[in-house]
Amino acid sequence: MAKASEFETIERYFAPLSASAPGAYGLANDAAVWCPKDGCEAVVTTDCMVAGVHFLPDDPPDLIASKLLAVNLSDIAAMGARPTGYTLAVAWPSDLDEAWIAAFSDGLGRAQTMAQVTLLGGDTVSTPGPLTLSLTALGEVPVGEALTRSGANPGDAIYVTGTIGDAALGLRVLRGELEPLTANHQDALARRYREPVARTDVGQRLLGLATAAIDISDGLAADLGHVAKHSAVSIEVERMAIPLSKGARACIETDASLWDEIVGGGDDYELAFSAPSDQVNNIATLAKAAETPITRIGKIKKATDSQSGVRFIDADGAVIAVEQTGFQHF
Amino acid sequence: MAKASEFETIERYFAPLSASAPGAYGLANDAAVWCPKDGCEAVVTTDCMVAGVHFLPDDPPDLIASKLLAVNLSDIAAMGARPTGYTLAVAWPSDLDEAWIAAFSDGLGRAQTMAQVTLLGGDTVSTPGPLTLSLTALGEVPVGEALTRSGANPGDAIYVTGTIGDAALGLRVLRGELEPLTANHQDALARRYREPVARTDVGQRLLGLATAAIDISDGLAADLGHVAKHSAVSIEVERMAIPLSKGARACIETDASLWDEIVGGGDDYELAFSAPSDQVNNIATLAKAAETPITRIGKIKKATDSQSGVRFIDADGAVIAVEQTGFQHF
Repeated sequence: MAKASEFETIERYFAPLSASAPGAYGLANDAAVWCPKDGCEAVVTTDCMVAGVHFLPDDPPDLIASKLLAVNLSDIAAMGARPTGYTLAVAWPSDLDEAWIAAFSDGLGRAQTMAQVTLLGGDTVSTPGPLTLSLTALGEVPVGEALTRSGANPGDAIYVTGTIGDAALGLRVLRGELEPLTANHQDALARRYREPVARTDVGQRLLGLATAAIDISDGLAADLGHVAKHSAVSIEVERMAIPLSKGARACIETDASLWDEIVGGGDDYELAFSAPSDQVNNIATLAKAAETPITRIGKIKKATDSQSGVRFIDADGAVIAVEQTGFQHF
Repeated sequence: MAKASEFETIERYFAPLSASAPGAYGLANDAAVWCPKDGCEAVVTTDCMVAGVHFLPDDPPDLIASKLLAVNLSDIAAMGARPTGYTLAVAWPSDLDEAWIAAFSDGLGRAQTMAQVTLLGGDTVSTPGPLTLSLTALGEVPVGEALTRSGANPGDAIYVTGTIGDAALGLRVLRGELEPLTANHQDALARRYREPVARTDVGQRLLGLATAAIDISDGLAADLGHVAKHSAVSIEVERMAIPLSKGARACIETDASLWDEIVGGGDDYELAFSAPSDQVNNIATLAKAAETPITRIGKIKKATDSQSGVRFIDADGAVIAVEQTGFQHF
């Protein structure tokens, strides 16, 4: 395919993604106009992904696009906000062909339809380096109600959505490091790494219910550590309560040291949140309404000199040493 | 200097830049909260800069920072909006040292103080490629009043702020291509390329006065071309009316072919706008209040089959051929 100019590329592949937002002016203006609805304030977050660091350069372009959107929407979800739009900055390597751009914008279009958001603006430039993508997501939340990392109280229970650790194990599958697994399990884990889905529905339903929330991007241990630090509490997690997928369970049965990967690895984009212990029925109702598994994995305790941050305990209450490596990009 | 971790870098160099925005949570949250004031809507724009493409890799870090902010605020200004905050995504080469980061954040801090905006959030990652910076600026404008490229009417006059062409000539100075110029003129032109200033004050004062506006980033001819296209008008510019700096005038006196650089080159970040011809006194008052030269350079005409887009005429009304190269990055 012949190479299009920057203007042609924007007009052909990106302007259609802005069609439902009049304030985006078809991407033919200096900036876009957008307004949170009455009684709401704006939520904004930015995440950046680099080929060879955050994704594999030969990953399918549509999956790169949907992951880029998902990691940003996950931050919006963790605030309890409704995502509405986004801007995109792309630095393309000059040898990237138009078919790649077409597949990327296709994937972005499908992902934004699923997420009910719209492209508002952006910038495309060329780079002598690797493909570099930066997305800024915008959302809206009732004034003063945004969830943060700092509201967890001693006595609260701590919950997670979905299953934990799949993405980190999925990356190991893609590296060929978990060959003994069945093909089905390998596929399922790899998909969790490559095709994360932001928990935007659950996030909005947590308003007025959760006391603190975060999305699991750096890893369960590291992200709960952020909640513990900013809420000035300690968090005790029952390791056996951590919800695992069938694939992750198969991994653990073969090699128990993979627990470190499950609690230390990142990129799950599930939500972790705290809620008062008397909200247990409301949370069960929420899980049903959002058609999303939500599991209580532990509790918030007072931080003391001898106990702060996050600790993992086994079924007998004994503390388990966890390698808190945090997420290592490849 | 020892290399700090991502968290340390953010805490040490970037969190202080968010201090005046409570909704940025000290950059210690998933996303930031921000609200346009009552009666206003949000304006959002994103621009991306790559080392070796949009700036010289050994340019002073503080100037790179202030230019990155200025090019985005210029888009906000062109909408007539007041800039309020921004998010930043940075992909650092792994060999970039902490002194560079310190100088960059210093420069950003000074630039945001001048512009009265605040860092709201962002992301820092490492890259095997060149330094890549993406900034998303946010602003606010009274609902429904944002200036666009599409409101120019036949009969309107067309104006520009400041002087035109200096940045493109400044880039040629930096390349050593304009050696016969005096050192003073060389310095002044190079500074216009390296230290652009967004016309945010003029932009806001244009509300209710200008019918269309754009910032001159692609070049006077190209950017007026955008206004002509989106307003469905033609634009006639008297070339002798284009305001030139002393340095630019000295260039032209030596080599008249540099006119092509002046009308074709980009990166000036001045504003061009149209306004009804009976507003001439109000515009003079505005220029005085904003302490910014504003010059009428031509007029808006009906687009016809034989005349569309932008044309430049000489003092006798004869059409001058212009090489509309648009802005070429180095």
